[in-house]
Amino acid sequence: MLIVQKFGGSSVADAEKVRRVAGIIADTYCEGHDVVVVLSAQGDTTDELLEKAAEINEKPSKRELDMLLSTGEQVSVALMAMALEKMGLPVVSLNAWQVGLSTDSNYGNARIRKISGERLRRELDKRRIVLFTGFQGINRYDDITTLGRGGSDTSAVALAAVLRADLCQIYTDVEGVYTTDPRKVPSAKKLDEITYDEMLELASLGAKVLHNRSVEMAKRYGVNLEVLSSYVRAPGTKVKEVVKQVEQMRISGVAKDAEIVSIAIKGVPDEPGVSFKVFRALAQAKINVDLILQSVGHDNTNDISFTVARADKDEAMRVMEKVVETMGAEGVAVDEKVAKISIVGAGMVSGSGVAALMFEALYDEKINIRMISTSEIKISVLIDERYADQAVQAIHNKFFGK
Amino acid sequence: MLIVQKFGGSSVADAEKVRRVAGIIADTYCEGHDVVVVLSAQGDTTDELLEKAAEINEKPSKRELDMLLSTGEQVSVALMAMALEKMGLPVVSLNAWQVGLSTDSNYGNARIRKISGERLRRELDKRRIVLFTGFQGINRYDDITTLGRGGSDTSAVALAAVLRADLCQIYTDVEGVYTTDPRKVPSAKKLDEITYDEMLELASLGAKVLHNRSVEMAKRYGVNLEVLSSYVRAPGTKVKEVVKQVEQMRISGVAKDAEIVSIAIKGVPDEPGVSFKVFRALAQAKINVDLILQSVGHDNTNDISFTVARADKDEAMRVMEKVVETMGAEGVAVDEKVAKISIVGAGMVSGSGVAALMFEALYDEKINIRMISTSEIKISVLIDERYADQAVQAIHNKFFGK
Repeated sequence: MLIVQKFGGSSVADAEKVRRVAGIIADTYCEGHDVVVVLSAQGDTTDELLEKAAEINEKPSKRELDMLLSTGEQVSVALMAMALEKMGLPVVSLNAWQVGLSTDSNYGNARIRKISGERLRRELDKRRIVLFTGFQGINRYDDITTLGRGGSDTSAVALAAVLRADLCQIYTDVEGVYTTDPRKVPSAKKLDEITYDEMLELASLGAKVLHNRSVEMAKRYGVNLEVLSSYVRAPGTKVKEVVKQVEQMRISGVAKDAEIVSIAIKGVPDEPGVSFKVFRALAQAKINVDLILQSVGHDNTNDISFTVARADKDEAMRVMEKVVETMGAEGVAVDEKVAKISIVGAGMVSGSGVAALMFEALYDEKINIRMISTSEIKISVLIDERYADQAVQAIHNKFFGK
Repeated sequence: MLIVQKFGGSSVADAEKVRRVAGIIADTYCEGHDVVVVLSAQGDTTDELLEKAAEINEKPSKRELDMLLSTGEQVSVALMAMALEKMGLPVVSLNAWQVGLSTDSNYGNARIRKISGERLRRELDKRRIVLFTGFQGINRYDDITTLGRGGSDTSAVALAAVLRADLCQIYTDVEGVYTTDPRKVPSAKKLDEITYDEMLELASLGAKVLHNRSVEMAKRYGVNLEVLSSYVRAPGTKVKEVVKQVEQMRISGVAKDAEIVSIAIKGVPDEPGVSFKVFRALAQAKINVDLILQSVGHDNTNDISFTVARADKDEAMRVMEKVVETMGAEGVAVDEKVAKISIVGAGMVSGSGVAALMFEALYDEKINIRMISTSEIKISVLIDERYADQAVQAIHNKFFGK
């Protein structure tokens, strides 16, 4: 098999961790597989480099920032190569221009355009372990770019796609994808399998295991992903197109997102086009809206509520205050003490009882639901932030048992 | 003018020093010159990277070591670019593959083969300051190489040669080339000019200002060098083919080298071929021999003495013990307490009184001369290490006054 393995910065933070990861790579290679490894910069390297830059220039050009930051991954791959050399294994480290990973010119957040893969294949043909610098690419000016958040995951999936790898393993601090946050809910269960779509929903709902860009790319190119631990040698969670349905009413997980706020516009005149005006204004400000609720107010007016990311709060309020003025609404208010609780599952559409079961769990706990939103594979509710953990626990118990 | 400037690692060791050097670069640029800057890795970066490597593998491959070490210069150029950006100046940092600096494949000590210079000229045509990563190149496999000791000086001279620069400035911790070590001899004088050949002799005699490789390259391509200080804004020392003869009996400097040992083979049979056998054995072991003395011993035997670098002592002794055995000499002894004192000057050949003046200075101090060696532009003597500084002072006084 050809296996692409990706290890994050904390997995290679010091010499001891580098050796541990070298052990995982060596075992995979010695089982007879071809191995391509994608590494991030060691531990806090990227932050340290950013600090160095900030000391000199608070607003450096992104081009030079990428020139600076890309050194971090090069250090990682060189050190890992040395660890594998010490074990007597054939290995070669390669950076973005050696591999021919082309991106657009969006410094700091570049998109992968093409991977030549020629050198990669030549090295694999020699039965060498190939170590590749994640997070970085080369644009058409021969300048170095970086891929932004989740960049190394994306590099790994892109290499797996180009090489038609049999498996792309993403090694992390956790043992896989769980039905909910195991630090909060001890009965959380590790999933053996999950679909790309479920993974995408879970990631956007706050599960920090995989970055959406990499999952989207994996789905597009049919790359078989596995999320597993750098520390515990055990199978992780496979992410793929279709998974076996183990039960009728299948859900994959319960997620909490408290990084949102709810904004309410009160006393909107009940006439055509008002919703359009509100959400067009938000779209123009490039603010993503999540849950939406339109409710009947008094005196022929409506209330419109919606949630946005906490980071967008100020900008959203600024935009809304203008909108309120032009459309003659009563006013706008923000509620920061809210949380969104979601369940995700590809089997949801077939099992209509899923929503009922979720609402029952909340009713049992006397937790009030303020908004509801559903999709093919997801149901989200907005509740008071105080009850968020309690709600996750109750819903998880209802679906997965205590 | 097109000026190439090179700054060493200590000149860019921290944010404040980076800003100071940025000031020098900015001034040069704002005087209307085209500027190409070659930088080394910051301060102790290279040593820190070597330590990291040693923690993982005491004997890493040189290929991976070069992959690791080359990141240091990339950090330097990116940070310097940010400092110049902050001053509002147009700047771009480039690494070895972006500039197209090709070397052979001798990792860790590669020789420059070719510099494409195309990108460099394009950036200069845009009136950008170009910052280039010293010390590194790319071989024909597209792998990263480093140039070994004095590599950044060599990079600077090579760029100056390719671009036909008007001047190549090497910025260091000292204000130029001195007639002797100014920390030891306060009356040491800074030279305005020195020839390539004199500089080569001085460098090989322990003056650490410029590495010989870079001076050799400058001589070959007729690059005008200037050695000057990163800290004091003053003209330095120009290194060129011919300099003005200011006095009849001109010497450029007095140098001391204590990093040598003297090895003596006693009781060598007085027959043809013995010297040949001794020095062939050393040559085969790749040990450079400096001063040589053959003296008449007793009972039809001779003594052969020579000096080697202190670092080669053990290997030289190992080789000599074998030689002594096969040729039936009495034995071999090493003297570590010796120093070589040299005077260098292009005017020496014309002024035959130079040697006499040097010996007179030593005689005045009652310092015994053990060996003598002369060349076109140099006279070296071997003396007891204890009197080395005294000898330098006395000779310097004799030629340059107190």
